[in-house]
Amino acid sequence: MTRSDDVEDSPAVDPRVVRTRSDVIKAAMQVLMDEGLEAVTHSRIAQVAGYSKATLYSHWPTRAHLIRDVFAQFQNFEHHTPTGDLQADLVAELIMFRQAIVEHRLDRGLVMLLALMSSHPELVDIRDNMVTDGERVLRRLLATTVSGPALEAAVLSLSGAVLHAALLHGEPPSDSVIEATVDMTLRGIGLQQ
Amino acid sequence: MTRSDDVEDSPAVDPRVVRTRSDVIKAAMQVLMDEGLEAVTHSRIAQVAGYSKATLYSHWPTRAHLIRDVFAQFQNFEHHTPTGDLQADLVAELIMFRQAIVEHRLDRGLVMLLALMSSHPELVDIRDNMVTDGERVLRRLLATTVSGPALEAAVLSLSGAVLHAALLHGEPPSDSVIEATVDMTLRGIGLQQ
Repeated sequence: MTRSDDVEDSPAVDPRVVRTRSDVIKAAMQVLMDEGLEAVTHSRIAQVAGYSKATLYSHWPTRAHLIRDVFAQFQNFEHHTPTGDLQADLVAELIMFRQAIVEHRLDRGLVMLLALMSSHPELVDIRDNMVTDGERVLRRLLATTVSGPALEAAVLSLSGAVLHAALLHGEPPSDSVIEATVDMTLRGIGLQQ
Repeated sequence: MTRSDDVEDSPAVDPRVVRTRSDVIKAAMQVLMDEGLEAVTHSRIAQVAGYSKATLYSHWPTRAHLIRDVFAQFQNFEHHTPTGDLQADLVAELIMFRQAIVEHRLDRGLVMLLALMSSHPELVDIRDNMVTDGERVLRRLLATTVSGPALEAAVLSLSGAVLHAALLHGEPPSDSVIEATVDMTLRGIGLQQ
């Protein structure tokens, strides 16, 4: 088999296949958010996306495959590009986290993912990848100054403050609370008076 | 009706009724943790608790009543009794939070509660009461020193650090990370060098 055959056979690069997959996952995400996880079935998603059930089954042989790909969407959120001003960079990154919650309902996606994990252990990998990606910018910014338990404490406090407010208070933190959290953390690690 | 009749008729004070309700809710909590929310039905709980379905229906006319009372159990976790040493008190309170997660699977209960809230809006009150009770000791300890966004930032960071580790890392923070979080917060609010 030549390389060009190889490429033609690969579902990842056929633009029609890419479009089908993207349409279906977009519809599935909408159904997940509007109707809940129970509604994420081949039959309901085919109906909403405007494809046949047979097409869906050819891409996602089981419901678990479909669910996995829907949650994988939550891995791709935008992050802040650091500018070198640590205080401003941390505030901007937490605001990006808040934006993913407010605009893309990342909080709801996370809760559904966590609720499903005990019956779908294959979702643990998705959570772990999401969290690794999600924390990467914060960790890089802080790792220039702290390490060990102090780095862990700083990452958990900053990220946890947004998570706690969103999940347990039902509302992500305001700008002034985000700024107060970053200032407290920077003073706490000895970087600000 | 005399007062004693009144007392005899009241389900809240008849010891048999109290015991039935306690047995059933204990069984329902076990089923929730072992088999998930879908298994929390009158029929399954009656079987596990060793009571008739009719008895269960007489106390909890609908599944929503049963679910509500099961989640209400998560409100009653132990807290640390402050000793006056702020650093030690904050560490001890976060360790109590961790203990509720490790021993009573508070994290799993929270995730189930949050996952259900969109279809069962009556659970919002239970979450709000849980969170108010859960944060009370932390808020009291910190309110002697900070207020406004700084108090909010401190409560969210401390509590959020434990929550973030438990939910998103799949493991609550170690003693050294809890201590580092408290030390960072106290330095951050100007109470420690």
